[in-house]
Amino acid sequence: MPDKPIAVLAFSGGLDTSYCAVHLSRDLGYSVHTVFVNTGGFDAEALAGIEAQARALGAVRHATLERTAEFYTRCIRYLVFGNVLRGNAYPLSVSAERVFQAKAIAVYAKEIGADAIVHGSTGAGNDQVRFDTVFHIMLPDVPVITPIRDHGLSREAEIAYLSDHGVEMDGDKAAYSINHGLWGTSIGGRETLRSDLPLPEQAFPVPRTRDGSETLEIAFTRGEVTGVNGQTMAPVDAIRRIEEIAAPYGVGRGMHVGDTIIGLKGRVGFAAAAPHLIIAAHRLLEKHTLTRQQQLLKEQLSLTYGSLVHEAQFLEPAARDIEALLASTQEHVTGTVHVLLAPYRFELLGVRSDNDLMSSAFGAYGEENALWSGDDVRGFSRIYANQLMMYFSVHGGQDAD
Amino acid sequence: MPDKPIAVLAFSGGLDTSYCAVHLSRDLGYSVHTVFVNTGGFDAEALAGIEAQARALGAVRHATLERTAEFYTRCIRYLVFGNVLRGNAYPLSVSAERVFQAKAIAVYAKEIGADAIVHGSTGAGNDQVRFDTVFHIMLPDVPVITPIRDHGLSREAEIAYLSDHGVEMDGDKAAYSINHGLWGTSIGGRETLRSDLPLPEQAFPVPRTRDGSETLEIAFTRGEVTGVNGQTMAPVDAIRRIEEIAAPYGVGRGMHVGDTIIGLKGRVGFAAAAPHLIIAAHRLLEKHTLTRQQQLLKEQLSLTYGSLVHEAQFLEPAARDIEALLASTQEHVTGTVHVLLAPYRFELLGVRSDNDLMSSAFGAYGEENALWSGDDVRGFSRIYANQLMMYFSVHGGQDAD
Amino acid sequence: MPDKPIAVLAFSGGLDTSYCAVHLSRDLGYSVHTVFVNTGGFDAEALAGIEAQARALGAVRHATLERTAEFYTRCIRYLVFGNVLRGNAYPLSVSAERVFQAKAIAVYAKEIGADAIVHGSTGAGNDQVRFDTVFHIMLPDVPVITPIRDHGLSREAEIAYLSDHGVEMDGDKAAYSINHGLWGTSIGGRETLRSDLPLPEQAFPVPRTRDGSETLEIAFTRGEVTGVNGQTMAPVDAIRRIEEIAAPYGVGRGMHVGDTIIGLKGRVGFAAAAPHLIIAAHRLLEKHTLTRQQQLLKEQLSLTYGSLVHEAQFLEPAARDIEALLASTQEHVTGTVHVLLAPYRFELLGVRSDNDLMSSAFGAYGEENALWSGDDVRGFSRIYANQLMMYFSVHGGQDAD
Amino acid sequence: MPDKPIAVLAFSGGLDTSYCAVHLSRDLGYSVHTVFVNTGGFDAEALAGIEAQARALGAVRHATLERTAEFYTRCIRYLVFGNVLRGNAYPLSVSAERVFQAKAIAVYAKEIGADAIVHGSTGAGNDQVRFDTVFHIMLPDVPVITPIRDHGLSREAEIAYLSDHGVEMDGDKAAYSINHGLWGTSIGGRETLRSDLPLPEQAFPVPRTRDGSETLEIAFTRGEVTGVNGQTMAPVDAIRRIEEIAAPYGVGRGMHVGDTIIGLKGRVGFAAAAPHLIIAAHRLLEKHTLTRQQQLLKEQLSLTYGSLVHEAQFLEPAARDIEALLASTQEHVTGTVHVLLAPYRFELLGVRSDNDLMSSAFGAYGEENALWSGDDVRGFSRIYANQLMMYFSVHGGQDAD
Repeated sequence: MPDKPIAVLAFSGGLDTSYCAVHLSRDLGYSVHTVFVNTGGFDAEALAGIEAQARALGAVRHATLERTAEFYTRCIRYLVFGNVLRGNAYPLSVSAERVFQAKAIAVYAKEIGADAIVHGSTGAGNDQVRFDTVFHIMLPDVPVITPIRDHGLSREAEIAYLSDHGVEMDGDKAAYSINHGLWGTSIGGRETLRSDLPLPEQAFPVPRTRDGSETLEIAFTRGEVTGVNGQTMAPVDAIRRIEEIAAPYGVGRGMHVGDTIIGLKGRVGFAAAAPHLIIAAHRLLEKHTLTRQQQLLKEQLSLTYGSLVHEAQFLEPAARDIEALLASTQEHVTGTVHVLLAPYRFELLGVRSDNDLMSSAFGAYGEENALWSGDDVRGFSRIYANQLMMYFSVHGGQDAD
Repeated sequence: MPDKPIAVLAFSGGLDTSYCAVHLSRDLGYSVHTVFVNTGGFDAEALAGIEAQARALGAVRHATLERTAEFYTRCIRYLVFGNVLRGNAYPLSVSAERVFQAKAIAVYAKEIGADAIVHGSTGAGNDQVRFDTVFHIMLPDVPVITPIRDHGLSREAEIAYLSDHGVEMDGDKAAYSINHGLWGTSIGGRETLRSDLPLPEQAFPVPRTRDGSETLEIAFTRGEVTGVNGQTMAPVDAIRRIEEIAAPYGVGRGMHVGDTIIGLKGRVGFAAAAPHLIIAAHRLLEKHTLTRQQQLLKEQLSLTYGSLVHEAQFLEPAARDIEALLASTQEHVTGTVHVLLAPYRFELLGVRSDNDLMSSAFGAYGEENALWSGDDVRGFSRIYANQLMMYFSVHGGQDAD
Repeated sequence: MPDKPIAVLAFSGGLDTSYCAVHLSRDLGYSVHTVFVNTGGFDAEALAGIEAQARALGAVRHATLERTAEFYTRCIRYLVFGNVLRGNAYPLSVSAERVFQAKAIAVYAKEIGADAIVHGSTGAGNDQVRFDTVFHIMLPDVPVITPIRDHGLSREAEIAYLSDHGVEMDGDKAAYSINHGLWGTSIGGRETLRSDLPLPEQAFPVPRTRDGSETLEIAFTRGEVTGVNGQTMAPVDAIRRIEEIAAPYGVGRGMHVGDTIIGLKGRVGFAAAAPHLIIAAHRLLEKHTLTRQQQLLKEQLSLTYGSLVHEAQFLEPAARDIEALLASTQEHVTGTVHVLLAPYRFELLGVRSDNDLMSSAFGAYGEENALWSGDDVRGFSRIYANQLMMYFSVHGGQDAD
Repeated sequence: MPDKPIAVLAFSGGLDTSYCAVHLSRDLGYSVHTVFVNTGGFDAEALAGIEAQARALGAVRHATLERTAEFYTRCIRYLVFGNVLRGNAYPLSVSAERVFQAKAIAVYAKEIGADAIVHGSTGAGNDQVRFDTVFHIMLPDVPVITPIRDHGLSREAEIAYLSDHGVEMDGDKAAYSINHGLWGTSIGGRETLRSDLPLPEQAFPVPRTRDGSETLEIAFTRGEVTGVNGQTMAPVDAIRRIEEIAAPYGVGRGMHVGDTIIGLKGRVGFAAAAPHLIIAAHRLLEKHTLTRQQQLLKEQLSLTYGSLVHEAQFLEPAARDIEALLASTQEHVTGTVHVLLAPYRFELLGVRSDNDLMSSAFGAYGEENALWSGDDVRGFSRIYANQLMMYFSVHGGQDAD
């Protein structure tokens, strides 16, 4: 079929993108190239299953693009540096990886000279904007086709359509939709469509099976996780190891209530043991090793960085600028953090670091000290109060009450 | 003793301020007026005990100033509005009340025409700066005397001095120094002087005695707690009721690692069940009732507000300005939040609010909707991506990779 | 024509909205109600001319809505409080008033039960988004018709169309498009379509006719302009008086290079003598009367406020929240500022205010003082340097070099 | 005198530090080493004069440390990147260089093993804190001696003291105290001690001698000035060339009203033609070459960076972190800016840059375009308005009025 136009489809193996694959070739006459981008959430078996499904749907070519290392180096690393938790809760599990998937697909589509680029997002969430945006930025001249958003078919209609074209798919909808990734799993279901109910235990893909408690030691080198329980390992391996140890305690679970890019409020559950533990431990280590000014600075910028990543603006050069700052702040963020794991909770026990600024050499908080005197503090307080003393003096006496 | 100069002493009943009381009258020749300011942490019995101690030390006059209502109305209220947790952990338990105590004492000292004003803070912490600063602002012409900071005596030396002057005090130092207040209790001890150890169970004044779990309902009206478990009550009562219910679960405990005003890093434990529950519930209710812009705005300002309160700058007019903004944001923050209490942890279950912007009327996140079409989002995404599309077009083609 | 549907048209009297008026009635069958909202830029004669033009085009009804007072009270006032200059240059002249026009038209359309609401903006600028957005927020069920954006006709085609329908309009395009308002005039032309040329003298509607120089005194009361050259007057009158005096000097002119809401960069000239003088004078008065913290706080929020106003988000409740803060900051911003006017420039001479915190009572900058000693500053400096001293001590000796 | 202790004195050649030199050797018995650090404001002749004066006062050794290149590379560069103007007016002329002088002196003192380090600042300004702070950070164990701050002598008393010790100094005080540097000159005098008067023409060291006007072309490469009027030159040379051309027009003059580190408000005049022109031109070039997000980001951080530099916190690692971000933003800030110079004012004419994002290729602001349609903007506006539409729908109908 050398003369058919080529459509590159961001393919997940699920019902929606299966529908897209058939619709593109049968109804629209495209030669369909399916692409799956792994950013760390899938193993070889799962990837093979996705490829087999693509073949079964008649994809002319299927590509599996491995982008885990890139996703860590160019994004997760900075999410840790910035202690990024959207709404103080959500580690951006899905939002962060979506952009890397979109980018990889766009590069692929460009290389093969695709005539169209396709995603299967619905018209209600953030993902549609992430795909649309990255595709429009990187391939402004290539049309973006979005059958699911445009057709608005029911599951039943999609299944019937596929069956009519010789593809049988399971009609049972899972009670909870699960999106698994290296940096956490997002969970949607009946409860996330309303405001007043939590997710039940069975909604979580890794059940809470561990009782009792244990201590976990996380080692950081210049802000990156480089060891677990005394064993040195590469950051991506360390993330997986921590998830493996901690997920069975049911820690790192939660519900994110947030504003979508298109203005709706939405609720999404998540299970993200490793991201939560790593960020909490990293933040504590920073409290010991960064100056107060550095922490203040990071606080503001991390908020902005998280928004750029979440809201489909990862390609903004401003994100690169913030990354330069975040990397600069991590120079001394080296040390180990001890964490207690227990069912449904963890507790930060303490840190050990050669760069700890809470060094006993300077005298501890609450203890007397040789490096300054009571008179020094008296002078400090007087000068520190100067402007307000003048302010209240000008405005009707000293009664600040 | 009509011709002796008058010293007003911020009196706590402890060893340090007992030493100050005797030193001021015996060594410095002052007529000593002791003042204790209750901002909600003490009951009648405790207050009577402090007064008795003052009398025993020879105080000419003792005043107990009740400032709980003021402390709530002028400070805690805004700490809730702002979801203020210093370092994402510490509800400013002691720092916030200290300023109100200093203010009340300064007003008292002014009224009676004190010749000196005295506090018993050591030379290492934040409290010395809080007292110094407020006194200097409100009474710039009245000398501030700080015997503990200046003399640097050991506990033993203070006890011996008091004994020499006929006052016997208990020589046993408690293993943990506890500072109890309406908005949380701070805890110092052996472990807080180092970086790597947590506080043991026995360090916490309210032991964890409850097992199992229960659901707590917190009601908010325009951002203030106005009900607990279906019962309407005044905010201060609600705070106490929540603390009473939740503290036996051991929730709201933690360790704050922070930067003191004088530049040291310090660690302090805390037990603050009510503040933690209220702030977490309030923040969740805001996620449902505020716009995204309002939340972003509050995030930045709350950080600043918390710093002003913590760092002895509560009297800054800028704090009044932020309060005006925070109050404005709370117009629609009305509703109830359900929280699950369990040993050492709590979980936010959900909210109910007439002002919930996640209303099903607009179609839920992930569902199709009548108020906009796929084409609308397509147009949105294209325009949303415009600047970056142009940026990458100018800078070497569209390869944002 | 009682049974025709009603279209409310935001009418300016220009070619584009004249085309809309005829198109709506002749081609689309609407009963056209034209509305013009005056936010301070038009006098009775100009308003009458616009009404006459509406009648000539066959408008069934024409309404002139006077919103100058509202525009000042609910917007300009805060732009002054916030010293808002977009890109440090542009006083938001047109952007600010556009929202008030859109709001007034939407209220009108609602009152008369309009079946459609129409604006004549093109598809390239910010105004289309401002109208679209306000209409969509306030009348989500009423369709918005935008003939100019949708048809993309040339001036010539519009003129021909009108002529075909019996309306003759002047075919000569002015060399510069001028948008006159109370808070400044914007100017577009040949030069603003490129990056490298300034506007020539003839582009400015008020020519520079004054030589020499004069002193102008601007009086502020709680942040609002309440007097000019010693004469008390209402803020709107004061703005007009200052513009009248200063515009002939050619001051307050400039070129704004900014990012539009839809992502393009654009250039627009402006002549805004009164806004520039008032904001510069107000900012200087604030430097004398606000604390440093208040100024820092305002700096950040003014940027956000300006963006909300400029970017069609004036209706955001976050804007109300910022206004509450801004109003709170103005309590003591009362005094007079002297300004020197000269051709093409002005110079701030100084301020007089009872609230001046640079009072000689505290000793002047550079002079010795009784309220603190050299020892106090020595102590201050030592404590102020504490954290960095420790930081460099931990990190390889004291060599910060 | 091998056994005398060594004092390193930050020496300027003026009356105050001359007094210090004699006092240190005659009264305190020190072997005095005078040090002068040139950060670009002094030529060889001036430096020789300072050295001669040091010798005449009996200094055992005099060192002239050349730090202009370092001052540019490590500070001015970033002040340009950040468009730093304190209070929107003052280019930090003196504040920035003071820290580099203090650092150089501290390094020198450390190398020679000084027993004391001495500065001649008074007790009222910012400089005392800058010297104190840097000395305390870099040499925490070396005492800092501050005779001027501690003795508080009058000029007359200092002159008499010097005369008594055989040193005759001019008793006439200049009407204006001038502080000349590479990045601008600060000016103090009678008028700067009050709020209501400007500096007269004679206060400015370079008189306004040029009439008429001329065009100046400033070239930038990655944010640094690298050319003037078509001639390529090193940044420091370019700064000097621009100052030389522009100062005779009297541009870049102004009055800074600011808050000192110790809480006073102060006024200081300045003449800083090159800094003002360069920053204005650089900011304009950024408007054309940076994205909106990058500009917003820089706006906030530049404020913080300016405060760190001004307020004696240049050594903060947070300043290094911001510098990393600022440098990252400058990647595309390359192009030329044309400026019109005229008496007492300048005007930005326009820019030329290959990186101009206002490229005509995308269609100009106000013109129709092929890259998006009216429908795209309609969709954008609808989605952009979504949250507010829902907000007003929940809160009592759509009447946002």
